[in-house]
Formats: sequence, structure tokens, C-alpha cells
Amino acid sequence: MQENLKYEIPENIRKKISRLKVLGPTSSYAYGHIQANLVIIDKTVAFDFLSYSMLNPSPCPILEVLEPGNPYPVKTASNSDIRYDLGKYLIFKNGKSEVVENIEDYWTKSKVTFLIGCLFSMQKQFEDSGIIIRHLNEKKTDPTFISNIPTNSFGIFNGPMIVSMWPINKNNITKAITISSRLPSVHGRPIHIGDPGFIGINDIEKPDYGDIIKLKHDEIPVFWGCGITPQLIAKQKNIDMITHHPGNMYITDLKTSEMEII
Amino acid sequence: MQENLKYEIPENIRKKISRLKVLGPTSSYAYGHIQANLVIIDKTVAFDFLSYSMLNPSPCPILEVLEPGNPYPVKTASNSDIRYDLGKYLIFKNGKSEVVENIEDYWTKSKVTFLIGCLFSMQKQFEDSGIIIRHLNEKKTDPTFISNIPTNSFGIFNGPMIVSMWPINKNNITKAITISSRLPSVHGRPIHIGDPGFIGINDIEKPDYGDIIKLKHDEIPVFWGCGITPQLIAKQKNIDMITHHPGNMYITDLKTSEMEII
Repeated sequence: MQENLKYEIPENIRKKISRLKVLGPTSSYAYGHIQANLVIIDKTVAFDFLSYSMLNPSPCPILEVLEPGNPYPVKTASNSDIRYDLGKYLIFKNGKSEVVENIEDYWTKSKVTFLIGCLFSMQKQFEDSGIIIRHLNEKKTDPTFISNIPTNSFGIFNGPMIVSMWPINKNNITKAITISSRLPSVHGRPIHIGDPGFIGINDIEKPDYGDIIKLKHDEIPVFWGCGITPQLIAKQKNIDMITHHPGNMYITDLKTSEMEII
Repeated sequence: MQENLKYEIPENIRKKISRLKVLGPTSSYAYGHIQANLVIIDKTVAFDFLSYSMLNPSPCPILEVLEPGNPYPVKTASNSDIRYDLGKYLIFKNGKSEVVENIEDYWTKSKVTFLIGCLFSMQKQFEDSGIIIRHLNEKKTDPTFISNIPTNSFGIFNGPMIVSMWPINKNNITKAITISSRLPSVHGRPIHIGDPGFIGINDIEKPDYGDIIKLKHDEIPVFWGCGITPQLIAKQKNIDMITHHPGNMYITDLKTSEMEII
């Protein structure tokens, strides 16, 4: 079931997602609100992961951290249970992942939930300034790539940065930089602009995750850090982790406009 | 031994402190550089403390977190060993504290070091804009108070916020707000301006820590969150913790001007 949830309020979207399993991608949902990547790990590695995130604010800007065993967000949403309120989850174990629709059976008192900003949150700000969001217009998820940019390691966490690519009209590059720089909580400024090869991406039409978006002749590829970077670490380092399924984000109550810095 | 270390470079100051035990208060040292509060705790409570700090950026703005067992800062300084490079430390155990001049005997592989911004870092910015720093002129440490402002709790960490008070001439209040708001990494904007009683301070001439600074008739008391807030928690909750001795800060290599946000 796909509905137009662009102007629905976040709490209602979360209810539809948890009860009716209205599945994403959520890019077109809750326009103007903050969407989040989900990472749930055991409390024994929570300090390492939080420190890693703080060292890598481009891919992993932390919106909220919950206490061990608490599945109820406080800062980012109310009346929400992280175990049910996303459309699809990935359960990483021994370097492999499986897809589930809720995480009731995987929840324990030692699970620590991290909510990490998502670039979808910026879409209204971009469109309000006249920037075309190609993946929205084409009803797709944005393409993401494993780059050759190393992240800063902490403890067991390290690996290459995953990046999102949005094609931006060459006349709008400055606007895109300005708007995104004001939103560090949802990835902030671009990590690279222009040359995919320079950051280790050989073919811009072969994303590692998400959909293909072909660049138009007057567009430049703009790259931002991406919050699925931890999923690659879970896979490469055999770390037990529960995450959202790429594109199926957690919809928060926060308005993006409230998260802008001066 | 007291020397004029105002324009000495940070690495040399740290050497003098560690080798010659040139003791603070460090407020007049390394003018224009970032100074830091120190908190060292066991790795079993490091996640709770880091999460607590992120929820309380006014008293606990995190500058750097070191991996368990690593006493060598990376981001904030080079050629430095946190076990020797402060003038005086406090060892908190069972709610009591003792003063030591290095922490060699207390160091273990499970110790995690946190460096937290200090308000002293703003002094040059204030003086450059014509604001008089009373405690500098009087060769004192600034007065700090236990306020009635609750901090946001996480795990075992909670308690009232400790605040620093700087008397500011009434014509310079806007400047003080503007300058400090641009420096969130060293406490950021004031937490309160004007009425000590409103934040639970009955007598502005009886600080809980630091020295007495008497307000002049044209000055207003301005309060900022203070990085010794964790020390009160260690005392009240019987948490093992190693900290700097109030006023004897860690001198980093970072220039305050580089930490300003736009």
C-alpha cells in the first residue's frame, strides 16, 4: 500500500507504518520534518559507537541516544516505539543481514538505540529555494555509494564512508551548500562536489544502494555523508546490529526548520 | 613557582607544568587558546557519561574523547600525556577526593579520558572586544556556584548544573552573548543573566568553588555552564573519577578563534 503521506503529521505516519505496514521509501513522507537512520547495538559497544559517531559527524550526526533497553524516543518523537515504527528493519548477525518488519523478537534490555540524521530531512528547504530533487520527482530513493573516504576510527568501528549523491543544477550549487551547511544534524555540508572518481566512485550509474539517477547535462553530482555507513561496518566487522532498511527511515516529530543553525 | 605564561606556546606550558609543576590557576596562561576540563572514568560507565555530556552541552561540551587506556590526546594536543600535563588532579573515590600532582599510580587500561571545553578559552575574544575580565585583572579564578538548574540525566549521571559567573559591564552584555554563542565548544551562550536568586544562588559573594569577585554597580552577573559539574556528580553518586583540580585546566594546542562557528 502506497499513500501520499507528504503532508501527513509524523505521529500518524508512524501509526500507519507500524499498524498497516505502509512501507517506504519514506523520502516523500512528512515533508519538512526530520527523518532518521536507525542503529541499535549492544550496550557493551555503545560507547565505541557513540565516540565513532562524534568523530564522524558527516555520515553519523547523532540526533538522539536512548538508554539501554529503552525503545521510546524522547527528544525526536513522542508516542513512539522504535521496535515497530519503521517499515522495514535489517538484522545484522555474523556479517549477514535479514529483513524484518518489526524487531520485537530481537529486543533485549541491553539494546541501545541511536537515531542519526538523514538527508531526506532537507528536501523541503531545497525545493523552497528552487532546487529540483530528482529522486523525489522520479519517485525513487537517492543513490548511495561506498566511497574511498576513510572514516575516523574508534575502537572496533572503522571503514569507508558511504555517501549519498543528489544531482544539482550547476546554477544551484551555492544554494545547496548554503542550505545544507546550516543543517549539521542531518549531514550538514557536502563531503564532495563534482568528480565521482576522486572519491573512489567509478560508475555514477551503478550505486551500491538505492536507485539509479542519471545526471543531466547541466547537473553536477553532489555528495553527502550517509547514515548507512554503520551498516557496512556491521557487515565487514561481524558486529551485531539492528538498523532501518535503506530508504525506510524513522519519521520524527522534529521540524527541519527548527534544526537550522544561524 | 608562578610565571607569566600568557604568551607562551601551549606545548611549552604543558612541559613546564609536568616537569616543574608550575601550578595554576591557568586562567592567565596560553592566551587565545582552548583550555579544557578533565574527566577520566572507567570504560564501564563511559557510554553513560558521553551520552550525559551530549544531553548537557552547556556544562559539558565535549572537545575530545580518548580510547580506553590511551592517555595521549590526538585532536586537542600533540606530544602530551594526560597523566602528567596538568598541575593538580582530584581523585574521587567513595564520594571523597584527594589532590595529586600526577595520576601515574591511578592509571589503568580501562580508563577513558574526556576533555571538556572551559570558559577561560574565551578570554582573549572578550578582551579584544573591550570586555573587562575581572578575575584576570585581580589574578583570581572565576567564582562558580551549584545552581538549582537540573541537568538532563542519562544512566547513573544526573544532578544540578554548576555555573561560572563573570561580572560584565551592563553596556557589554550583548557583546558577551554574541561572542560566547559562537563558541559552543567552550560552553557557548550564557545559561542565565542577571538574577542569581532565580537559579538558586542566594549569595553571589559566597561561591561554592573559585574566588570571590564583587560586582561593581554597573556590572551584571552573567552565568555559563561549568565543566566541574561532573565532579559534583562523582561526589554525590560515589562514582570513581579522576578530574583536574578546579582552575588547573588542561592547556590544548587549539586556538579559540579556530573553534568559532559562523
